[in-house]
Amino acid sequence: MTKAAGSSIPAAGPVAAQGGAGVLFQLLRDGKARTRAELALTTGLARSTVASRIDALIASGLVGPAGEGNSSGGRPPSRFAFNPYVRVVLAVDVGATHVIVAVTDLNGQVLAEQRLAQDVADGPEAVLGRVVKEGFSLLATAGRGMADLAGVGIGLPGPVEHSSGRRVKPPIMPGWDGFDVVSYVQRSLPVAVLVDNDVNIMALGERSAHWPADENFLFIKVATGIGCGIISSGTLQRGANGTAGDLGHVRVPRGDDVLCRCGNYGCLEALASGPALAAELDRQGITATNGSDVLRLVAQGNLQAIQLLRQAGRDVGDVLATVVNLLNPSVVVVGGSLGEAGEHLMAGVREVVYRRSLPLATAHLRIALSLAGDRAAILGASQMVTQHVLSPASIEAALQVPG
Amino acid sequence: MTKAAGSSIPAAGPVAAQGGAGVLFQLLRDGKARTRAELALTTGLARSTVASRIDALIASGLVGPAGEGNSSGGRPPSRFAFNPYVRVVLAVDVGATHVIVAVTDLNGQVLAEQRLAQDVADGPEAVLGRVVKEGFSLLATAGRGMADLAGVGIGLPGPVEHSSGRRVKPPIMPGWDGFDVVSYVQRSLPVAVLVDNDVNIMALGERSAHWPADENFLFIKVATGIGCGIISSGTLQRGANGTAGDLGHVRVPRGDDVLCRCGNYGCLEALASGPALAAELDRQGITATNGSDVLRLVAQGNLQAIQLLRQAGRDVGDVLATVVNLLNPSVVVVGGSLGEAGEHLMAGVREVVYRRSLPLATAHLRIALSLAGDRAAILGASQMVTQHVLSPASIEAALQVPG
Repeated sequence: MTKAAGSSIPAAGPVAAQGGAGVLFQLLRDGKARTRAELALTTGLARSTVASRIDALIASGLVGPAGEGNSSGGRPPSRFAFNPYVRVVLAVDVGATHVIVAVTDLNGQVLAEQRLAQDVADGPEAVLGRVVKEGFSLLATAGRGMADLAGVGIGLPGPVEHSSGRRVKPPIMPGWDGFDVVSYVQRSLPVAVLVDNDVNIMALGERSAHWPADENFLFIKVATGIGCGIISSGTLQRGANGTAGDLGHVRVPRGDDVLCRCGNYGCLEALASGPALAAELDRQGITATNGSDVLRLVAQGNLQAIQLLRQAGRDVGDVLATVVNLLNPSVVVVGGSLGEAGEHLMAGVREVVYRRSLPLATAHLRIALSLAGDRAAILGASQMVTQHVLSPASIEAALQVPG
Repeated sequence: MTKAAGSSIPAAGPVAAQGGAGVLFQLLRDGKARTRAELALTTGLARSTVASRIDALIASGLVGPAGEGNSSGGRPPSRFAFNPYVRVVLAVDVGATHVIVAVTDLNGQVLAEQRLAQDVADGPEAVLGRVVKEGFSLLATAGRGMADLAGVGIGLPGPVEHSSGRRVKPPIMPGWDGFDVVSYVQRSLPVAVLVDNDVNIMALGERSAHWPADENFLFIKVATGIGCGIISSGTLQRGANGTAGDLGHVRVPRGDDVLCRCGNYGCLEALASGPALAAELDRQGITATNGSDVLRLVAQGNLQAIQLLRQAGRDVGDVLATVVNLLNPSVVVVGGSLGEAGEHLMAGVREVVYRRSLPLATAHLRIALSLAGDRAAILGASQMVTQHVLSPASIEAALQVPG
């Protein structure tokens, strides 16, 4: 599924197979310490299997001793727990005009972080070259080396072919179309490299940090573009060609006479994105060229800007009402620069979603502002890598040596 | 997740744990015969583990000997394969005015089938009482007994709380609200009983029979009601409260002045369902009271009925365009009585979906009529049961005996 160079979780020793190691490790990932007997009881694995798999996991460093359990007489048994500090992840958030690079541990805790001003239109080699350079620097800051790096996760604005990490016809990213991001990064950082679009990654980050119990979760980003990250049954959904969540060109009834840059009329992005609001303010005689101008005017209490932002919320809500009926999520998080700007957009969203969605679909629905804010993408990029390199299959493959 | 009485896959003997049996069995479910050595190589399980798990699976009857493999000198090794005939499933499709009951094997092949005229409004005890009686009779017809029954799968029209099998506020099913379908059926058939709404089950059946390679799949049913079964990443999506796929009350711009029975204006069902089309024909002076009348008129070449059906297709397409942008499926199947009526509705659907969806989302999209037809629900009900009782966890639990 994912193009990724050889795993950097080291092999443990000359064992023929590690069936069960993945299951054991998944159990231990919650951070709780357990004895071998407890692990055997919970997994149903034979005690001898548990013993050998735990040995392999300890040799890899992923699991470490964590004190002693209760004794039933005799020497108390050893307890073991996940060690999230043994490896680190390089998490990268490429925006239209910024890049954030961070080093996290395997639990997504940020150990070192740097925000750079960088125009994505400078092209992939300029942007990714800086990412790699900054990555080495941050690893040093965190006191870690290449041997500690489990993988690199990168969020890019717009559609990405997740399986190859290639950008697909990026509307705001000249030079990136078809560029092999994974291979380019792996030339300098020969580890697992995973790439996805920013909204998918923000959905992963927001959920893992703040809504881990919600299996059906939506993250909608309202900024220069409008898009949606979909988590259904606990899994990020990318669709058949990786374009799932592309809400920007869904039709909003109110906009039937508004031409979108895609050639259709009435697209959500043509009505409710930052540039669309700025253009409308401009038509009303108020100077504004982008979403930041709109947000500045809203902060200054400009009534027209506030009205437009609330109407944008209603337009987003109009599309979200359909999405809520279709997917029945328990949480919808609104993020992106316009979403994070506060309650004006949210008021419009809530107004329409609760009016238009079915009572059953909204009975327990929460619509919330992003809590992760501009860290959502970094957290999600880290999460994307740990989901991959710490999956049961990856763990068993990494521990396995042809014996 | 699913309320289900004790599994009817028998235990294999006094072994402490069956870790790996589930994985082995999943591999064998494709029907191909394999040797123990091949199984060890593919799964990475130790040969001793493979040997003991295969013994347990053979004892359960789920796996049987299947000839011999190639010898590298000496006695040729035995090969093993899944035996889908060892157990059967009772698959039930409850419609508004009919019930279909079938006995299938574990591959979904129908062994015996009966179609009954039965009004769902007669209430759960009348309908399910008949289902149980017919089930026993069909088991006898197929030459099987209760000991062979792996589970019962039931599709009901409208929203179902899948975890409990209880109907949720059913608009067309008086007497069913909150009725415990699972417990009622288990009183006579003490096996795993799974319940879901008809559209979800039709999606499962259509995909398993005709589109098994498509992991992102939609089934839209256009009949008295309009709903959608969503399969994303190969998994049926039910949402947080089991209402995912409820498209009937999504707003269609054209219908802003049409009042729906739900109290909102412009709902898809108020415009494009069988009763809506019949009511519109009636307004035009052509006698029609339901979808069957509309279909009869279409078959007779009535121009107004044909025009209405095509416009209904455009309305469905309007909503589907959003769904396609959102979920990026590779296949959309149109079923239900109006969907199956032929190309008039489909023409409207295709027209709007290809016009309104993003090129990336429709580049490889197929929009097809249902191939399973009125057997989709039966096939899906069978599939729902086998997915549950033959899952790795169920297999390992069934083979496990506290040792």
